[in-house]
Order: sequence, then structure tokens, then C-alpha cells
Amino acid sequence: MRAVDLIQKKRDGLELSEAEINFLIDGYTAGDIADYQMSAFGMSVFFKGMPGTELAHFTNAMLHSGSVLDLGPMGRRAVDKHSTGGVGDKVSIPLAPAVAACGVIVPMVSGRGLGHTGGTLDKLEAISGFNVSLSIHQFMTQLNQIGVCLTGQTGEVAPADKKLYALRDVTATVDCIPLIASSIMSKKLAEGISGLVLDVKFGSGAILSDIEQATLLAKTMVDIGTRMGKHVVARLTNMDQPLGIMAGNALEIRESLDVLEGRGPADIVELVTEFGAEMLVLSRTCEDRETGRAKISEVLSNGKALAKFRQMIEAQGGDPRIIENRDLLGTAEKQIAFKAHKAGFLQSIDARGVGIAAMLLGAGRQKVGDVIDMTVGVETHVRIGDEITEGQTLFVIHSNGKGEAEAMERIAQSIVIGDVKPAPFALFGARITKNDLN
Amino acid sequence: MRAVDLIQKKRDGLELSEAEINFLIDGYTAGDIADYQMSAFGMSVFFKGMPGTELAHFTNAMLHSGSVLDLGPMGRRAVDKHSTGGVGDKVSIPLAPAVAACGVIVPMVSGRGLGHTGGTLDKLEAISGFNVSLSIHQFMTQLNQIGVCLTGQTGEVAPADKKLYALRDVTATVDCIPLIASSIMSKKLAEGISGLVLDVKFGSGAILSDIEQATLLAKTMVDIGTRMGKHVVARLTNMDQPLGIMAGNALEIRESLDVLEGRGPADIVELVTEFGAEMLVLSRTCEDRETGRAKISEVLSNGKALAKFRQMIEAQGGDPRIIENRDLLGTAEKQIAFKAHKAGFLQSIDARGVGIAAMLLGAGRQKVGDVIDMTVGVETHVRIGDEITEGQTLFVIHSNGKGEAEAMERIAQSIVIGDVKPAPFALFGARITKNDLN
Repeated sequence: MRAVDLIQKKRDGLELSEAEINFLIDGYTAGDIADYQMSAFGMSVFFKGMPGTELAHFTNAMLHSGSVLDLGPMGRRAVDKHSTGGVGDKVSIPLAPAVAACGVIVPMVSGRGLGHTGGTLDKLEAISGFNVSLSIHQFMTQLNQIGVCLTGQTGEVAPADKKLYALRDVTATVDCIPLIASSIMSKKLAEGISGLVLDVKFGSGAILSDIEQATLLAKTMVDIGTRMGKHVVARLTNMDQPLGIMAGNALEIRESLDVLEGRGPADIVELVTEFGAEMLVLSRTCEDRETGRAKISEVLSNGKALAKFRQMIEAQGGDPRIIENRDLLGTAEKQIAFKAHKAGFLQSIDARGVGIAAMLLGAGRQKVGDVIDMTVGVETHVRIGDEITEGQTLFVIHSNGKGEAEAMERIAQSIVIGDVKPAPFALFGARITKNDLN
Repeated sequence: MRAVDLIQKKRDGLELSEAEINFLIDGYTAGDIADYQMSAFGMSVFFKGMPGTELAHFTNAMLHSGSVLDLGPMGRRAVDKHSTGGVGDKVSIPLAPAVAACGVIVPMVSGRGLGHTGGTLDKLEAISGFNVSLSIHQFMTQLNQIGVCLTGQTGEVAPADKKLYALRDVTATVDCIPLIASSIMSKKLAEGISGLVLDVKFGSGAILSDIEQATLLAKTMVDIGTRMGKHVVARLTNMDQPLGIMAGNALEIRESLDVLEGRGPADIVELVTEFGAEMLVLSRTCEDRETGRAKISEVLSNGKALAKFRQMIEAQGGDPRIIENRDLLGTAEKQIAFKAHKAGFLQSIDARGVGIAAMLLGAGRQKVGDVIDMTVGVETHVRIGDEITEGQTLFVIHSNGKGEAEAMERIAQSIVIGDVKPAPFALFGARITKNDLN
């Protein structure tokens, strides 16, 4: 078998066999197949796609390119949630301890931020000492002890995906549904979970802004998971405005604490409750989502979710005193209010623009390796459809000076105020399960 | 400017500017743009093509990635011929000295063989001592002295093409018309020529067997050349049967000598005469092709073409005694006649099959780096439409034992004898000039 023939086969729109896919991924992991061949293959996938069977083989090969965790001996079902990423999306941070507080194993592997969206790992590092680079041994030990962890992808898990992900970034094959879907699913299923809830974003702040593309991605991932014998549910959610109030690392930890103390912003609380309910059903902890929602609300209001979060901070070396004394998270030098220049109804907020403003202030990376300022960010105090009075505070910018002017300019361009009340904003789109596949 | 953005632009079907193309090719030549980015770009070109202006910029950037010869001081027009390659195609070997004997500068850069087609350089190396690796200095000196040379591409000429050509071979982007066209034209125009005749093959023994694809390639090359201010004519020629009688390195030198002595096989003589006439018109040596044909016939029959060939052999360190004593070229151990198993009309000869048989005997390379046996090969003694008697010799195999059984098997499968006289074989297809472009 030769890599060039497999590239040509894909280029010509033919389906590769399981043996061919394994040859390609195993060879790439071992370094026998070069980056320049894999990038040509990736571009062929961009143009020709991958049918379901082939894509399941592809995902399976990446999943088995490294260690696959076996959580069976823990005797409880493990479930996870994955989000395709959005501005202000800190859902994982309160969600993981809340679900774990209900008795479910949550082995959550997260990522770092790049561009206009923040990363869960970066946000957690706003907590002094918090270690997001657990070894597989530490990961397993912590799951055994407290049932939850939030950590980064190690080199041992799905190394083929890690290599391919970096390659796609420099070869214009990021926005390719089969490659996105197999990357996410191979990483997540290597965690040894039996169920997975997917938060697939659409709208201006999402990677795939088009709802049809987002729906196709959701179906593709549910299809892969189902073919691999896992229970997978996808929810489409709207990223046409930032999630919650806070965008920025320490700011989002503060807001996550609000949620865990039973007083978070409505949209974040709703997402935590709904995704938590899905996870409780997938883990067979609850019979239906209604019971699940009640259970999540309970642990958010009775302090059990917060207690689990404290355990997790302690287990991962972080300073738990931030729970009682949030000022330990740090504060930016300046808080600048951005006020409405006229009255009217808020027609739209460009979530991507708000994310870029936060990045420009130093909350995110323009390129890999940039250093993050934990204290800066943007508060968004309005929602689409709100009636605005002139001079009302729309945003508060937390700044240490860097990128401030450019960020203010971005914020100014990100809102539209008009005379007519717009259609109500719907947070959730379709819910996709294996029954929705063609 | 970033390479990834240029890949994406091409992937999305947009046209790159001259500055963008130069950034890409200059960066690739310098090693700042990686093979994995260039291969993704190449695959995008495979799917999205390149409009004429962009392709001219691309060719020009490759052409200027290394030395560009300046033949102006020689005071005579330089012209060349390029063939896309076929089985038994030794046309360049008698053509270059014949045209040079008419007073034209012929700075011919040729290639080596791979797969079922032989390479001009390999054939010339059947002449003991013949050096096909001239430096640019030697190349220029020889052109000044005798007006002709036949040599290989040096690293100094079009290095971007050399790199990209090797990359395409392992990333399934060989059969891509814009990439084939720009590769040929960048190499050829770097020779400093003012005119170029292209022999674009179609039929079973050609790289592009489909006549429409071959026509598109011809038009693409004429378009590139015209945009770059050169005089370019393309002729489509039929590779549905081997050219001449001989396929194999020393065997083809023998046949080239036949041509230069005024007694070659009809099809090879016709190609040399017609392409020679085109070159004489492009160089303004003759007013029209008819005069040009007469001139070429004259130098083939009066010994002037042969004398020029002798000068070239001597200038390039070869042994000119092969002209008088062809046995110095060597002979294979066995000559095996392959006879007709039945009578009838010859319907078809699979030229590719004959080429592969010669390769299997050792006349060509299955992969880069294989060592060639100069003496082996295949003689084809029949032509499509010939009436065959049972037991008539169709082929003679020159063998030293290696691959003999497999080659005989291939030869047996390469001909079809039937009862009906087939349509006559036409050697030439369309003639394409700048007036035929849309």
C-alpha cells in the first residue's frame, strides 16, 4: 500500500477501506507518512467529504493512535460534554462539578483558546496554581477520588489527532466538517466515556456561523458516536450574542462561581441546567430530562456543586480561597463603561466582535504562544431585544491599557440599535439524536 | 501575507494576485513555505484550476526562481521542442541536430524516463561517455560553438519547479493540467528561447490518453507562452501505437542514426520533418512550413544533420565512433521473435503495454533510482491496419533474461488481430496556435 494511491483514491471521490484508513493514520502517527501527504489527503477530504462508514474508521484509527482510557473498573457511567466554542462560553466550568455532584464520572478534557473564543484551560489557570496538565495516572486517580477533572489533552491521547489538528491549522483545512467531527470525537471517545453531549454553536460568534453547516456537523458527530456504540446527543445553540455577561479569563471564573452559588446569568444557568440534564439521562442517573433539570438546580442551590468545584480546585493544586475571596483572581487597572449613543431596541450584538475586543485587550491569543492577561475582558450588559435608553451602560471594558483603543472601536461597531423591537432571541436550536440521522 | 490564507483563497476558487503568487513561489524556493503547505495548495489547484492570468504569473514565478539564460548575444533566434512523452519517442535526438544544421540555436533541456515512457537523457547515455549534466557555463559555450546541446535540467534552472515536481509525484497531483503546463513552460522558457513547439500526445501510450484533456493541455501551454511574449505552437499527435520500430535506449539511438542517415521509419521521419519545419518558421529561418519541410529533408539526406549530431556527441564527451560502428552501442544476449498466432488485420497495439514490456526487460525505471539496461527493448514491426499472416513476426524482444517472461506476457496482451480492416491511423491531431485560444 502507498500513501500516494490513497490520496488519489480520496481525491477521485472513492471510499477508503478500514485497512487503508488504518495504514494512513498508523503511518502518519509513526512518521512514515509525511505531513505533505497528509495535507494533500486533508484537502481532498475538504473537497470530496467522507461517507459515514469511512469517517467512523477514520475516527476510530485516530482514537486508537494512543492510549484509550478504561473507566470500567470505576463501576459508574462516565459522560462528558463538548462545545464547539463561543464567546463567553464558560459552561464546562460549573457544569462538570454540578454533574459530578449528582454522582456521575466526568472526565473532561478541554482546550485552549485561539482567536475570538476563550479556552476553558486558560480560564482555569486564572486560579493560582491550578494544574491543567494532568498525567493519565493523575487523571485516573482524581476521577477515582472525586469523580471529576478538567484537564488538557496529553500527548498520550489521540496523538494522530494532535498532529493532524496542528497541520490543518496551517493548510486551510480547519473548516471541514468530517475533519472537525473526527477530531472532536476521537479525542472525546479516547476518554473512555459511554455518553457524550455536544453543544454545537451557530450564529455570528461560532466557528460555523451558518445553521445548516452547524446542523450537518452535529449530525456527523452523532452518526460517528452511534456507529462506535456510544450514546450521543447534540444540541444546537445560538451564538448570535455573547453567553453570560463576562468574557475574559478571571471574569469568567467569577461568573462561574455565581452559577455555582445559584445566582448566575439566565442563559448560562439555562445551558448548565439543560446540558446537565442530558448528561444525567445519558448516565442513567435520571429517567428523563425534567428530573435531570430539577436535580441540577438542586445541586446549584444547595452548595453541593460548589463543594465539588472546591474539591476539584484542591485536587488540581489551585487556591480554593478564590471562592470566598474573589479578589485573589486579580482585577484590571481600569473599568471603562461604554454607553449607548441613542435610545431604541437592541437589534444585534456581534458576538465575534466582542470576542475579538477581549482578545485585543489581552484576554486571548492572536497566535499560538501569545501570553494571556488573566484580568482583562469585556462585560456585556444587554441582550438582543432589550429596550435601551440613551447613555445606558452597554459594556464595561476591563483594561490594563494594551489594545484598549482598538478594542473600544470593535465594541462600538458590535451593536446595532434600532426603532423596531426585533424577533425574540432563541437560545436553543434543534436537538439531534441517533433517531434524526438519515 | 501568510501561506495558509493563500491556500484558502485558492481552495475557495479565488484568483491569486501576482504579488501573492510570487510570495508563494519565492517562499517555497527559499524553504520558508513548507512542503505540506505547497501540497495542500497543489491539491486546491487540482480541484479549482487556475485562470490564464494567474497561471502565467505562477509559471513566471517558477521560471524566475533560478537562472534564466540570456541567448540574446548569440544574435540568432533560439527555439526548442518539448514532447509530453510517449513510447518510442526519440524525435528530439535527430530533430535537435537537424534544426541546428539549418542555422538555428537549439538549447534543448530534456528529462529522464519513469514508468512506461523512456527519457531522452537515458537514451543518450547509451553512447559511451555522453555527458547530459552540463553546467550553465558548458551549456552556453557549446551553444556558441555548435548551436545545439541536449542536456538535463540543472539545479540552477527553475528550482521551484524541480521541488514542486517531486512533491506532486508523492501527493497525487501529477495529472493536473495547470500544474503540468506551468512545469513544462517554466523549464522551457528559462532556456532563453523565443519560440517553442509542443508535441502533446494523446492515445493509449500518452500521459493524458483522452484527446480532450490533451487538447486542453496544449491550449493551456500555448496561452501561457503567448502571455509571456513567446511564439508557441502545439501539435497533437497520436500515441495509440509505438513511435518508430525501436523502444529501448541503445535501440533508439540506432534508429535515430537511421533517421539522420535519411532512412528512418516513416512516422519518426514525418515527426522530425514536421516539428523541424515548425521550428524553422518560429525562428524565421523559413517563411512557411512547406519550405521548412524541404529544408529538413535536405539536411537529413545530405549528411549535414548527421555531421551536427557528431559535433554534439564530441562536444558532450561521447564516443562518435558509434556512427560508423553501431555495435559499440552494445547488443542484448537474446533476440526473441514474437509471431502472429492468427491472420487478419491489426486492430490495435497497446502502446503503454509495449512501453511497460520494455521497462520490465530493464529499459526503464519502475521507480526513481532503478538502474537501466541500455541494450534491451522491444522492436514493433507492424502498424495499425496492416494485414497480418499467421506466423509473421510482430515484435522482436531484446532480452538479457530479466523480466523476460512478464514482458512476453505483456506483449502478447498488447495486440488485437481481427477480420475487418480498421479506420486508417492518423499520426497528427489538431494544430494549436494563439489564434485558437478562446
